Amino acid sequence: MYNFEYKNPVKIIFGKASIAKVVNEVPSNAKVLMIYGGGSIKRTGVYEQVKTALRGIELLEFGGIEANPHYETCMQAVEMVKAENIDYLLSVGGGSVLDATKFVAAATLYKNGDPWDILTKPGTVVQAALPIGAVLTLPATGSEMNGNSVITRAEYMQKQSFNSPYVMPQFSILDPECVFTLPDRQVANGVVDAFVHVLEQYLTFPLNSPLQDRMAESILITLIEEGPKVLANRNDYDAAANFMWSATMALNGIISVGVPQDWATHEIGHELTAFHGIDHGRTLAIVLPGMMNLKRENKKEKIIQYGERIWGITDGGVDARIDAAIAKTVSFFESLSVPTTLPEYDVPAETIEKITLRFKENQMKIGEKGDIDFAGIEAILKDRL
Amino acid sequence: MYNFEYKNPVKIIFGKASIAKVVNEVPSNAKVLMIYGGGSIKRTGVYEQVKTALRGIELLEFGGIEANPHYETCMQAVEMVKAENIDYLLSVGGGSVLDATKFVAAATLYKNGDPWDILTKPGTVVQAALPIGAVLTLPATGSEMNGNSVITRAEYMQKQSFNSPYVMPQFSILDPECVFTLPDRQVANGVVDAFVHVLEQYLTFPLNSPLQDRMAESILITLIEEGPKVLANRNDYDAAANFMWSATMALNGIISVGVPQDWATHEIGHELTAFHGIDHGRTLAIVLPGMMNLKRENKKEKIIQYGERIWGITDGGVDARIDAAIAKTVSFFESLSVPTTLPEYDVPAETIEKITLRFKENQMKIGEKGDIDFAGIEAILKDRL
Repeated sequence: MYNFEYKNPVKIIFGKASIAKVVNEVPSNAKVLMIYGGGSIKRTGVYEQVKTALRGIELLEFGGIEANPHYETCMQAVEMVKAENIDYLLSVGGGSVLDATKFVAAATLYKNGDPWDILTKPGTVVQAALPIGAVLTLPATGSEMNGNSVITRAEYMQKQSFNSPYVMPQFSILDPECVFTLPDRQVANGVVDAFVHVLEQYLTFPLNSPLQDRMAESILITLIEEGPKVLANRNDYDAAANFMWSATMALNGIISVGVPQDWATHEIGHELTAFHGIDHGRTLAIVLPGMMNLKRENKKEKIIQYGERIWGITDGGVDARIDAAIAKTVSFFESLSVPTTLPEYDVPAETIEKITLRFKENQMKIGEKGDIDFAGIEAILKDRL
Repeated sequence: MYNFEYKNPVKIIFGKASIAKVVNEVPSNAKVLMIYGGGSIKRTGVYEQVKTALRGIELLEFGGIEANPHYETCMQAVEMVKAENIDYLLSVGGGSVLDATKFVAAATLYKNGDPWDILTKPGTVVQAALPIGAVLTLPATGSEMNGNSVITRAEYMQKQSFNSPYVMPQFSILDPECVFTLPDRQVANGVVDAFVHVLEQYLTFPLNSPLQDRMAESILITLIEEGPKVLANRNDYDAAANFMWSATMALNGIISVGVPQDWATHEIGHELTAFHGIDHGRTLAIVLPGMMNLKRENKKEKIIQYGERIWGITDGGVDARIDAAIAKTVSFFESLSVPTTLPEYDVPAETIEKITLRFKENQMKIGEKGDIDFAGIEAILKDRL
């Protein structure tokens, strides 16, 4: 096991009818900006629940955060925060709204130049952020219990991320009944997203960390069991709750303590979103099988362990077992109606060239061993044609 | 799943050579009281490591905390804290030293009367405590990542506990190399203690919480695998690290979110320590099999799941499988050289009467369903004769 530090002070408030508890968490003297997305919270009643709970508190609104939230939109929110002297941000929505809120929180107090540096300039460290609270409506990204944020700059077709303890929410309210109103597509994307989050922290190389391995496997198995139940019956509270908690646990840092992490699937997936606007979870379903195939030697021991413990694959030689593990993973994603190849998303072969060129120009190498260069990325994507 | 709230802001600093990092965590202008136990930290060098790291910081010492720390000793520390205007407490030792430190932190700032009330008077709420840091030398109690404390009042032969977020350590340093110098008995006690902590949060009734179940099982399996490795080779760093992290994860609250909890084994075990001074972990090894036997109907589904997933018991009817699960548990404890019956600790039958009488007088009922009264407690203890 590697040495590690772990601190996660986010207060989770989980369960039925918990949204009204927001009033106990937001300071009563705060001037709050409620940030939300395209308006689904108005259809589902979450908007009204939050407004009712917070009546008496000074509450402004900023709606219109996109899926894969745009830097440009976030900067409009920053303007509003500054103009109105907002001192507390309340994210009401899914991971995109929360990621945007985190960036707004950091960008507002960023003093050292262009806030775009937070996302792109190596060595930039966030040193302050406005306090954030969250009401989560969509289990997927795990953003509700970490300091990560991913932002897209539309004009550059770039998707970039940053991480800071300062943007961890002070609280996150998770009401599984929010799942009841989600469309199939968002449930499926969320299951895939959480599943791949776990694999990014698990499917690397063995480091004699059996507890972290088993905890990761616990989340994978639960997602495999509960995801289809949620899709089959959106009013199954237990299934919704188990799915929601699994997505949070998948990326709150507890399974990655002391172990290597990959994240190459995410880095390549972000490019597919940047160029084609493909839903984040779906980009992961495309890239992951190619990643497993290309890195079958590097990841041999863990892919075999994954195949055996998650899918019961115990027959055959090393390559046959790896092939079977990849096939099982693809089947799982497809069973959720999430396609896993590029042509199914109308992505042309030229996109592979464009993405490869980006990594070539950056001289960026990715993966847990930092050994996947542009040629590797090209191979992974060609695998998915 | 029940509704729940979860917040655990303890910073964990884990790994080789991490004790020196204490200097980054203790405020440099603090007046620190270092609290420790019987002096083993001087033999192992931990004392010197801490002193060296903190040279330049005003550091006083209070040694002599007992295993099952005494209220009387803690109150001497409180006197010293007040007399010397200490403003930071540093626990250097195992769970007993840390539990004592927590009580000292709360008792020092307790304004509403006798600090003994914190441990015994229903409705008493701790509203402030001195800040605490911890260097943990012994994996077992999980106290390094929670707000729990158990204190013994020798004159009354009473062992009592309290819980408060105010006494969660600000940081806990966990260096697995501390395990290298532990005697067999403390390793074995620690494995049993952590194992039973998990079962107190797991062996209740099913509530459709598959992730919590599997996470609990992950810790149990890891303890079963790693505990004997630590006993066999005290210098096996990986085994020490896996054991140490398992003990922390067993009681940092993450496996108990949204599920019922028992703790009857602990409540009865505390009485055996109070009357006979038996090591805490050993009292759990005595009581647990009796608990499983008595509550075989209440706990049926979970005992069977435990038997199947942890010990591979899949044959036979319900009672046969429960018997086999109990037998496997007893064998595991005995394999660590931890006896599991009262006569092996020279506890006479009269002690059962005394303990039963206490619960009868208190009219206290325990267990996850609150249905174990004095007669149940008598039956559990007689089972262990």
